Amino acid sequence: MNPVLATIAPSLIRAINARKRPGDIDLGMGEPTLQPDVAPFEAATQRVRTEGLPYTANAGAPELRAAIAGYFGFPGMGDAANVCVTIGSEEALYLAIKTVLDPARDEVLIPEPCYLAYAKLCALEGVRHRAVGFSADDGFRPSADAVLGALGPDTRMVILNTPANPTGRVWPADELRKLADGLAARPGPPVYVLSDEVYRELYYTPERPASLADVYPYALVAGSLSKSNALTGLRLGWLVGPGEVIAGATKVHQLVNTAASTFSGHVALEIFRRPETLAAHRPLYAEQRALLLEHLARHGITHAPVEGAFYCFVRLPGRWAVSSLAAAERLLDEQRVVTVPGIAFGAAGEGWLRLSWVAPPDALAEGIARIAQFFAGSTHRGRGLT
Amino acid sequence: MNPVLATIAPSLIRAINARKRPGDIDLGMGEPTLQPDVAPFEAATQRVRTEGLPYTANAGAPELRAAIAGYFGFPGMGDAANVCVTIGSEEALYLAIKTVLDPARDEVLIPEPCYLAYAKLCALEGVRHRAVGFSADDGFRPSADAVLGALGPDTRMVILNTPANPTGRVWPADELRKLADGLAARPGPPVYVLSDEVYRELYYTPERPASLADVYPYALVAGSLSKSNALTGLRLGWLVGPGEVIAGATKVHQLVNTAASTFSGHVALEIFRRPETLAAHRPLYAEQRALLLEHLARHGITHAPVEGAFYCFVRLPGRWAVSSLAAAERLLDEQRVVTVPGIAFGAAGEGWLRLSWVAPPDALAEGIARIAQFFAGSTHRGRGLT
Repeated sequence: MNPVLATIAPSLIRAINARKRPGDIDLGMGEPTLQPDVAPFEAATQRVRTEGLPYTANAGAPELRAAIAGYFGFPGMGDAANVCVTIGSEEALYLAIKTVLDPARDEVLIPEPCYLAYAKLCALEGVRHRAVGFSADDGFRPSADAVLGALGPDTRMVILNTPANPTGRVWPADELRKLADGLAARPGPPVYVLSDEVYRELYYTPERPASLADVYPYALVAGSLSKSNALTGLRLGWLVGPGEVIAGATKVHQLVNTAASTFSGHVALEIFRRPETLAAHRPLYAEQRALLLEHLARHGITHAPVEGAFYCFVRLPGRWAVSSLAAAERLLDEQRVVTVPGIAFGAAGEGWLRLSWVAPPDALAEGIARIAQFFAGSTHRGRGLT
Repeated sequence: MNPVLATIAPSLIRAINARKRPGDIDLGMGEPTLQPDVAPFEAATQRVRTEGLPYTANAGAPELRAAIAGYFGFPGMGDAANVCVTIGSEEALYLAIKTVLDPARDEVLIPEPCYLAYAKLCALEGVRHRAVGFSADDGFRPSADAVLGALGPDTRMVILNTPANPTGRVWPADELRKLADGLAARPGPPVYVLSDEVYRELYYTPERPASLADVYPYALVAGSLSKSNALTGLRLGWLVGPGEVIAGATKVHQLVNTAASTFSGHVALEIFRRPETLAAHRPLYAEQRALLLEHLARHGITHAPVEGAFYCFVRLPGRWAVSSLAAAERLLDEQRVVTVPGIAFGAAGEGWLRLSWVAPPDALAEGIARIAQFFAGSTHRGRGLT
């Protein structure tokens, strides 16, 4: 067996989910609960009727690639040749890591707390990786200085996520500019930045979050229709980047799975033909977010600013500052609320809990009330013990 | 950049296709031209209407995994836990190579001529690989002795293909038994056999081709709906094997692309609910094959026995015995017929051409007539030169 597999830890999220019982309030899940639009599926089925379902080109249908490139309009990345259509954003992350990095030399820098697949993908590919933590004291606000200060001589990739899972934070445009300038000023080969923008359409800031690709030529943007259009099961995403990286990524993509589903590509093309549908769910999320903030405020729960995605990162009472896993397990056992412990997102997330707020409004209200009760109880218990 | 990418040669098939002009007769393609059944797509669209399109479990929906395991019924591999649903058989090949082999030690043995992705996937994963050629003299009949005789001390995987691309040959059951016995008798850790059975449903032998998994516990079977159901664009396949390999493969699969399309999984479940639809296209292929053999016989073209798949491996006149690429290029330029040079399938295929016979009957007849003319002409030219 490949010895690398034994080094990749099983998912903590999965461990928590395994304890879940029927009737529990689930604030742990990482996917939308809204219904997707069926019209693109009907159109794609009609195409099967007339055209069958042949392979698409390895990197995706040229028309879809051009539509994706045009939708984002990143400088120097506006053509079909700048897009590889992937099996969700997950494969885009994999392709970027596999294509750009030389496992014999290169190192990846990963700001935390973050989606733990970044580190696991590096481990799978035998690529060295190192974490840098954003500060809990300012609610994990993304910081260019933190990243630039942590770069090492072998760092050839940084992995960002904006809007971020689990923190809900958005990289401010001026921080991205500072990061781009700092990276551009470094001598030696370029440092690629893999920007995971899978939550790009779900933002609650006054303006659409900026992308590093707006200001940096070595950005690689991963995205998908999973979150914006409630289509996690479509497995249709993209990697957008410089042409030479996309050509290399397509070579890997062709070998590891040939191409994304032609049917999913047809569905995606229908969606990109009416790009307003990419934003159709945002008002619903904004409403739900307002409810969430109301409940959190009422119960006096401390949390990071919710600027995007559909997560809220909540600070645990001091009693649980170094044991978020135990807290999440006890919360589930005692109050029957599923959450994800912050430690699942790296050391920087310890002492916090991630809530998904895509549950129905009643469940969300009840879940937060129970969390407040748990926090109060655990504080008391904590006091009793000390 | 990852230096391994530069070591993977671009596809010869693609080089030939780049020379193709409108109106050329295409006997080069590797996918069915029949129309797929649309009913499963309508049923899957109906499910989107009622259930949305959430993620499936990483290894696929338990019901689909159980249906696939049950359909094949390999001894000791009959449960859902023995199946990982993949992005076509291509990802199944990738997962098997990535999961089972230790790049630091293990070697893969690849009988040729064969689909060249096997060697390229090994190269991509940094795994040593070595070819063993089946003999052109008996039409590339699969031979257990050839494989067993070529095993080295580090060989930990053999990759078989039955029915085979490009030869159309099927592994006889007694050869599989001999191979299983020979492998089982070896001391040391087991030698896994990755059995690519993507053409499993397309056979013209009196009985369904046997699988090594019928008689060998370390078999890993890759397959898909691409060829049987004319659904190359569905990207829905499977890896069937021992539970511990499937568990490891699922770990890789989860990291590199999360899961196959939920929609494609629903389509597949509809098909496995009526397993007779997996064989529905076989009579059409059998008819077309009869036509093919008639044309080849009429023109006196030498070829390997066509026992399965939709390819025919044709021996080039002696003039082209060491230059199948040049022959395919000249055939395309002079006679406007697209084929694939045997060298694209490894050194053992040199001096041969692969024809796909899924073109419409008229195009097939005309294409073979032109090939015969080319062979005659090139023989003359050859004679003229010597």
